[in-house]
Parts: sequence; structure tokens; C-alpha cells
Amino acid sequence: MTYTAPLADMRFALREVAGLARIASLPGYEHATDDTVDAVLEEAAKLAGNGLAPLNREGDKAGAKLENGVVRTAPGFAGIYKEFVDGGWNSLPFDPEYGGQGMPWLLAATVQEMWQAANMGFGLVLLLNQGAIDAIHHHGSPEQKAAYLPKMISGEWTGTMNLTEPQAGSDLAQLKCRAVRQGDHYLVTGQKIFITCGEHDLTENIVHLVLARTPEAPAGVRGISLFIVPKFLPDNEGKPGKRNDLRCVSLEHKLGIHASPTCVMSFGDDGGAVGHLVGEEGRGLSYMFTMMNNARLSVGIQGLAIAERSYQQAAAFARQRVQSKDDGSPEPKPVAIVHHADVRRMLMSMRAQIEAMRALGYYTAAGIDGALRNPDRDAARKLQDRVDLLIPIVKAWFTDLGNEIASTGVQIHGGMGFIEETGAAQHLRDARILPIYEGTNGIQARDLVGRKVTKDGGEAMLALVAEMRASASELKRAPGDDLAAIGTALGQAADVLEDATRWTAHSAKSDLVKALAGSMPFLRLAGTALGGWLLAKSALTVRQRLDAGDGDPAFLEAKIVTARFYAEVILPPALALVGPLKAAGHTVFALKDEQF
Amino acid sequence: MTYTAPLADMRFALREVAGLARIASLPGYEHATDDTVDAVLEEAAKLAGNGLAPLNREGDKAGAKLENGVVRTAPGFAGIYKEFVDGGWNSLPFDPEYGGQGMPWLLAATVQEMWQAANMGFGLVLLLNQGAIDAIHHHGSPEQKAAYLPKMISGEWTGTMNLTEPQAGSDLAQLKCRAVRQGDHYLVTGQKIFITCGEHDLTENIVHLVLARTPEAPAGVRGISLFIVPKFLPDNEGKPGKRNDLRCVSLEHKLGIHASPTCVMSFGDDGGAVGHLVGEEGRGLSYMFTMMNNARLSVGIQGLAIAERSYQQAAAFARQRVQSKDDGSPEPKPVAIVHHADVRRMLMSMRAQIEAMRALGYYTAAGIDGALRNPDRDAARKLQDRVDLLIPIVKAWFTDLGNEIASTGVQIHGGMGFIEETGAAQHLRDARILPIYEGTNGIQARDLVGRKVTKDGGEAMLALVAEMRASASELKRAPGDDLAAIGTALGQAADVLEDATRWTAHSAKSDLVKALAGSMPFLRLAGTALGGWLLAKSALTVRQRLDAGDGDPAFLEAKIVTARFYAEVILPPALALVGPLKAAGHTVFALKDEQF
Repeated sequence: MTYTAPLADMRFALREVAGLARIASLPGYEHATDDTVDAVLEEAAKLAGNGLAPLNREGDKAGAKLENGVVRTAPGFAGIYKEFVDGGWNSLPFDPEYGGQGMPWLLAATVQEMWQAANMGFGLVLLLNQGAIDAIHHHGSPEQKAAYLPKMISGEWTGTMNLTEPQAGSDLAQLKCRAVRQGDHYLVTGQKIFITCGEHDLTENIVHLVLARTPEAPAGVRGISLFIVPKFLPDNEGKPGKRNDLRCVSLEHKLGIHASPTCVMSFGDDGGAVGHLVGEEGRGLSYMFTMMNNARLSVGIQGLAIAERSYQQAAAFARQRVQSKDDGSPEPKPVAIVHHADVRRMLMSMRAQIEAMRALGYYTAAGIDGALRNPDRDAARKLQDRVDLLIPIVKAWFTDLGNEIASTGVQIHGGMGFIEETGAAQHLRDARILPIYEGTNGIQARDLVGRKVTKDGGEAMLALVAEMRASASELKRAPGDDLAAIGTALGQAADVLEDATRWTAHSAKSDLVKALAGSMPFLRLAGTALGGWLLAKSALTVRQRLDAGDGDPAFLEAKIVTARFYAEVILPPALALVGPLKAAGHTVFALKDEQF
Repeated sequence: MTYTAPLADMRFALREVAGLARIASLPGYEHATDDTVDAVLEEAAKLAGNGLAPLNREGDKAGAKLENGVVRTAPGFAGIYKEFVDGGWNSLPFDPEYGGQGMPWLLAATVQEMWQAANMGFGLVLLLNQGAIDAIHHHGSPEQKAAYLPKMISGEWTGTMNLTEPQAGSDLAQLKCRAVRQGDHYLVTGQKIFITCGEHDLTENIVHLVLARTPEAPAGVRGISLFIVPKFLPDNEGKPGKRNDLRCVSLEHKLGIHASPTCVMSFGDDGGAVGHLVGEEGRGLSYMFTMMNNARLSVGIQGLAIAERSYQQAAAFARQRVQSKDDGSPEPKPVAIVHHADVRRMLMSMRAQIEAMRALGYYTAAGIDGALRNPDRDAARKLQDRVDLLIPIVKAWFTDLGNEIASTGVQIHGGMGFIEETGAAQHLRDARILPIYEGTNGIQARDLVGRKVTKDGGEAMLALVAEMRASASELKRAPGDDLAAIGTALGQAADVLEDATRWTAHSAKSDLVKALAGSMPFLRLAGTALGGWLLAKSALTVRQRLDAGDGDPAFLEAKIVTARFYAEVILPPALALVGPLKAAGHTVFALKDEQF
């Protein structure tokens, strides 16, 4: 039940797939040198493996508890959070003007993978804080930034996102929380649910970002504004002062992430919580969209992280659990189950998909950095389009895989997997929230088809297809069976993804509902194909490095094996979704509502 | 969170797919008339819906508790168990000579679906008892049968299966429990784990079937014998007498099925538990195989059941949860989410796969009845071969789908799905044991490829392929787009399944490990294709009935819609596993153990 950050794999994905060197050459990222990045990774790995991971099971068992309005996190969490903040880990990617280290999002994503793999119940608070920092950074006034950002960036205070209400989950147009202007501030009243870390004992203050309606605002999303509603109002010295009129009224009993308190928050029970408008009235929802790419990438990374954690645990179990003879040997004595073909298939399938996710996740993070910092604004805009396209795929595909892989991890453990003490089941329980929060995966698929592919008629995706095809040609020309097999599969993937994209782009115009009926199979197909492309490209790089005698041959050859397994075993069923995505519309609405 | 037995669908599968009329015409099943079957289904539906289902969440929350060696089941469980036994429900399929009702296994499977859907934590004890009854019925002495069967068949006593030990899970050859002869009985000592309902307060006695080794027995599976080790030794009047030397030393903390106590059992702490040999020494494991088909069918039915329960709950939620506008309408007001294309795709996919499972499950149960009772012994033998082939598919494919569908059920609930009070998450937790117990799904795939397909070179599967092809031809000739689309897909499925079967049968001879590397994709492909075949056949029947004006048109037309959805959306990715199942062997053993 330990976790060891897979540093060799992470470095490979950072350098060979995501192009760390190119990112570090962008203005503002010059300090992300190889040495610095290596040092960050090594130290983060220590904190994740020795500090966070050992608390994961304890956090699950103890959970967060609400007692007399105070939320107590699980034993050890407050201590490790302090260590985390003191080590400067929270500030990694944020603006140096407010105390951040200004490191690339690429590096932040890599380090995030470690925190989330080590302890998702702990790691979640970091993501909410990141979102709140982003929102204030982009849309807050200079005074707001000065008052909140340094504390939030250091991690001394944490931020929350108060969006959901019972009648308004995915559909924020239905929000009812109210904010009434009162001099230089607003009085906020209403109830919010599913508020992650809405109350806790990790920090001296909590900065709530709250979506609410002003009295004369129009109905729907244009009537929603964003407010900063701190638990304690900062005093003249910037320290937590007067207690604001808000409280946590209950905690949810959840399937997983027990260590992370999910709060029902009540604002304004005693007349109104003091809130400060962020930006302009009526623009709250559009401000939320600003931070969405980072937030969704982070949730995707959680999917990758929980998959890696599950894989490590299952692989360790499979290497030590002795049971039944080796089918490939006449020897009757039982062997470690890692020798059994189906167990090995499961491990290979976990591993191959994890490497594909890591490749696509880091690639997307590097895209965010490029879009932010590339001085060639045309190139930056194209990168932004690519990132916008990839984000829903990363969020939904990674989190679906996170669940599937955590379930495979349970399966490899056999009966022990069903016993909570083993810890494999916790990963599955924890993973189950990922396809739901930060926009359900259905909403990601809707975003991909109804917005991203529609807005450019599929152009951004077809640009990726062209790159896939170029890689496929190169692979087919390369020597050896492995690369040829990978190249052939990649060529097919490019053809199928092009077909699926053209059909989707076309159908979305003529019959949106029909295109949406196939949106999730389309997303799965696209994610699987793009992940396969990056593994295939890596196999080429690896071949060149092997030929040049550069690097550890066993490590590099394993990359080719994994890419081939992925190309031959993982890709085909996903490519076969091209039929279903076109056909789903035939039947999806053929029954009446009441027939379900 | 209620459950309503889907009687119309069940009757359809019983009559139109599994051929209830044919089964009821077999000698010994004449009393399974339409009226009797209908009455059984209606009464069972009441008990399941009104009695068992309301206790499901309570059982999960309270769980079973061990206190001073006594296991207390959750509140209400002992009462409903008594009602169940008093109603005669336990005796349905068993031998009338010992108080059973001698009903077909087909009807037993249908009713089992209800118990398991209503309350899996409750239903599990019935399956263990069924297995123990089977073992004693087939291999016990006349005295043993007289002493135990009437009480076990009525359900006044329950049976258990004591197989697993810490070092011996899937690999029973490693068993260490000992049984030493002592006059007319044996003294059994040792520890068993994962013993379902090894101790409970539902009945006055518990009949443990225990696998153990006799002192001079050879190593491996030939040294294992089967013993009856009752909790209380029956006295001269057949009542529970002297307490035997066995006890439950702890209960496992499990991911799901909390209501079902999973015991660590210790035998012989005070010198040895009195055990009675079943049959001959050294044949314990072969006796276990006797009951395996029924037991594995039952676990498959549990997969179907939990899927149905999840579907009902998700569909009800989707019909009432209002969120976001209808993409197919200009109207801006939010609608029930059942109107959203991706939610509907999820519901259709649950529904279609559930109907395919029900069709294949009942078909297999009817096969068991036919193999038992068909007076034409040649036909019976062929049916037995077919059943032997189908059983690992039913067990593994159904239970994998049970998990996938329970997870989809959570997803449809959005954030509410992650909250335990909703109940959707419980189904997912409960379902997770199914691919593990009664032979992991990997072991089912090994059985399918390494034993069932190998023993006849694929003949039994190819006979099914021939029937699929005949159905496909008939469908292609039938009028209308729907049937033609289904027929085309089914024809492809037959071709692919034939290819996969021939490859597997051939490879299993020349390179078993290579065939096993593809065994799980093969099983998935076969299950999906066979389920699709039975839905396609039903669509033909339905068409004829619609044309004849026979039956509820809306119900019947929905069957065609579902079959087409399955053919176009569910089948293609499964058929695409033919490549992976052949290719997995290329790479599965290419890495060294320590590289995982």
C-alpha cells in the first residue's frame, strides 16, 4: 500500500513526449532548467511517498468529521498539510508577483500526479484552491488580489468553489443563491451543496468563491455573479478578522474520498454573509470558464494518478502472491500469479493505458504553457485551440480509465481485493467521483462534440490526425516488426478518427441530437487514438535512442513493448466505436420516456 | 430505491427465449404449468419488492456483526428469512423426495434474479445453501441425505462451502486443513477464510461442507476430501444436538455485501471438529465440480440482477431529475435528464445488455433442465456440452457487465450517485465481488479456452455459430430496416465468433499460453455475440407476433429497438476483440516480472 512516484516514466513523458526543453525555453519559464525540474521531482516524490501515501488509508478510515460546526480532518492531515505548505509546494505554478514560483503547468501537472496518487483525499483541497486562485488572479481587483492571492498561493489559506445547489448541478442557470448590494459589499444568502473542503481545520481561513444572483439580475446564466466570501474577513493587517455569516451544516456520506470533507454550506443565516463582487455583475459563469481548462486537466490527472496507484499495488501483489502452476511450464509447483497469462494481460493493459494517459496529459499541460507563453501569438492561438479540444478528452477519458483500471486492480487481488484493509477497493471508491465532478463525463462529451468540434468543423482534430498520419508513415518505414505493427495500427487509427470527426462535425450541424447520441463513443475513440499516437511517437524516439546507445535499454525497450500492446490490444475495440457513434442516433430516442 | 421485478421481461425471456413450454413438457417438470409459473412469479415479485428490497440499504448500513462468537445479521434479516422459508421459497428447485418442489432450474433462475436484485446481501446465503444441497444430494450417503437434505431444502438449516485458506484461493491444491479418521467420523482441524454465512443467526443449525486432507493423502488435489461438519451435530431425533468444535473467529470488512457475514472459521481448536466424509476419500474436489455449473449460473444471475436493480434506479432518477434544456428543442426550460442524448444512450446500453444477459442466462438454465431431463440421452449430452461451454461465459460476462452497469447507474445520478444515501453506490460496491468469487473471471476465461473449447476443438461453440448464422439469414430476409440491420450485424458476429473460436481452439493446442493471453477478450466477444444472437432471434419472434396482432405492441416494438441498439452499438467493439485476442500473446510476456 505504498506509492513510489514513477520518476523514470514521468521524466520520459516530460522530456520525450511533452517537450520540457521547448517549454523551458519560453519567456518566463527560463528557470525551469533540467536540474531544477529534477530536484523538484525528487523532493516531491519523497513527500508523496513518505508523507502523503502512508496517510491514505487512515484518511479513508477516519474520514473528516463535523462536530459543533467544526470540521476535523483525519489524524495527520493537518500536520502533513503544514509540511506541504512550509515546503512551498502549493505555490509551484502561480504568479511570482504574489509569491508563486512561476513554474510551467507541465511541471505542476507532473507533481500533481504524485500528490493525487499518494492521497486523493488530501490532494483535492489543492485543486479547489488552484481554481479559486485562478479565478481571483484573472478577474479580481488589484485590492482583492493583494488581499487574497499571497495567502492562497502559499497555501496558508485555501479557496473553495461554491457552485452547486440542490436544483442546480450541471445546470447552473437554475441557481437561486442571492447577493444583495450593501454599500461596498454584498450580503449573500442561500445554501450550497457538494462544497469540497468548505470547512476544515487545515488553515486559519477559507476563501469561498460563491456564485449567486443579484436582485434585478435576468434569469438564466447571465444573472449569475461571482463573489469572494471569506470565512473570516481580513482585518486591516490582512489577518483573519471578523467571522463571516456562513457555516457548514453537514457533511455528505460518500462512496470515497472520505478524507475530503464535502460540505453543505449555509450562507447568511444571520442576515447575510459579506461578499465582494469579483469583476462585474452577471459575468460569474464566464469567469468560471476561465479556470475550467486547468481544473479539468487536474481532474484528468487525478484519473491518471489513481490508475498508477492501483497499478503499483496490483503489480506488487501479483509478483508476491503464489497460486497455481505456470501454464507454460511442465513444473507442477505454484508460481507468482504475475506468471499467469490473464493476470499479465490485465497488468499490461493497466500499464499501457496509464502511459498513454500520462503522455496525453503532460502533452496537454505543455500545450497550456505554450498557449500562455509562446511569443508567436498565432502559434499560441493554435495551441490554445488544441488545448480546448483536448481538455474534455483528458477529463473524461482519463477518469473513465481511472475507474476501469482501479477495478482491474481490485480484480488482480482476487478475494483480497474486496477486503477494505487491502486498500485496492479504496482506490476504486475514490476514483468513482472523477467522472462526475468538474462537469460529468457526459458533459465533457457534449462540450467536445457540441462546442469544440462544431466551432471549427473539426479542424483542430484533423490537424492532430495529420500528425498521427505522419508518425504512422515514419513508423512503417522503420525497421523491425514492432514498429511496423504499431505504424499499421496508428495509420488505421488516423483514418478512423478522421472519419469519426468528419461525421461528427457534419452531423452536429444538421442534427445535433444525433451527434450527441454518439458523443461519448466519439470521445472514447478520440482519446484512445490520441493516446496511442503519443505512445507510437515515443516508440520511434526510443528506437532512435536505442540505436544511438542512449539510455537504459531495458527501460526503453519496454516502451516499445507497451506501445505495441496498446496498438494491438487496446486500440481495436476503441476504433470500432466509429460504427456505434454513428448508429446510436437510430435508436436512442426510439422508446418513450415512460418505457425506461 | 425500490425494486419491481420486471415480470413482463422475465416472462418474455422464459417463454420466447428459453422455451418454458418445452421444459415443462420434460418428464418430471409437468407440474411447471403456465399457471403455476405465473403464480410463482407474481408471489416471488411481491416478496422481493415488498419484503427484501426495503431491507437492502439497512442491511448495507448495519451489516453483520460478530459479538462474542455470535454473528448477528442486520435488523429485519432474521424475520424476512423466516418468512422466506415459511413461504417455501427455498425448496423450489430441489428433489421432492427430500421436500423440494422439483421445479425447473429455469424457474429457479428467474426467481433467483428477483431475490438477488432485491437484496444481494440477503440472497447470498441461498446460493451457498444451494451448493451444499447439490453436493450432498449428488455424493452423500442415504443416511447423510436423510439427516441433512430435508432441513437444508426447507431452509431451516443453511449450508456453507469451506474451501479457501489463506494460501489456497484459486489454487485448492495448496489446502492444508486436516481430517483424521476417528472411528465412524473424522476430526477436522484448520482455518478457512472467506466463508460466506459461516456463522449467522438466521437458523438453528449451519451445515459446513469442508475440504480437508487426510493424513496419508497424496499432495495436490487428489489428496482432498469433502466433509460434512455441522455446527450442531444432529441428535437421535435429527434435531441440533452437541455443539461441534468450530467457530467464527472474525468477520471481514468488505467493500460491499455488508449484510452477508464473511467469516474466518476455525475448526478443531479444542481437539477437532466432528466431520463426516462425503463419498470417498480423495474425491472432494471432483465433487465440487458437480455443483459448479449451478453455482456459476447463480453468480451470473447475480450480475444480471444487480444490473437490473441499478437500471431501475437510474431510470427512475433520470425521469424525475430536471436539469438543462432539451438539445432537440428551442424551448429554453430545463427538462428531465432522460431527454438528454447521452443519458439516454447510457440507459439504452444498460437495458440492452440486461436483456441480452437475461436471454442468455435463462437459455442456459433451460439447458441445464434439458440436460437433466431430456429422455433423448444424445440430445441431453449435446445440451450438457452446450451448458458446459456457456457457464463460464455466463459467470464472467454477466458479472463484468453487472459492474459496468452499476457504475453507469452511479454516473446517471451525477453527484447524488456518489452519496451513499442514494443507494446507487451500494449496487456498485455489492457488484464488485461477483467477478471474484466462485472462480475469478480470469479462471472462467481459462476454463472456457483451456478446457471447454479445447476438449472438442470448438465444436460446441461452432454449433452455436451455425444457429446464429441461420437466424441472421432469416433476419435479412425479413421486411423492414430494423430486422435487416440486426441481421447484418448478427451475420458479422457469427463470422467473427467462428474466426475467434477456430483460432482459439487451434492455438490452445499448439501454444496454450498464447491462447490464454487472449482468453478474456475471447470470452467477452463470445458472450456479447451470443447475447446479441438471442436478442436478434427475439426480434424475429416479436415481428411475427406483431404481424399476428398478438400481445402489447409497445412492449414488443421496444424489443426490436433494443435488439437493434445492441446490434449497432454494443456488438461492434466486442467483435473488434478478435484482433486483440490473437495479438495479446505477442507482448504479454515480453516484459520481465520485475518490470511490472
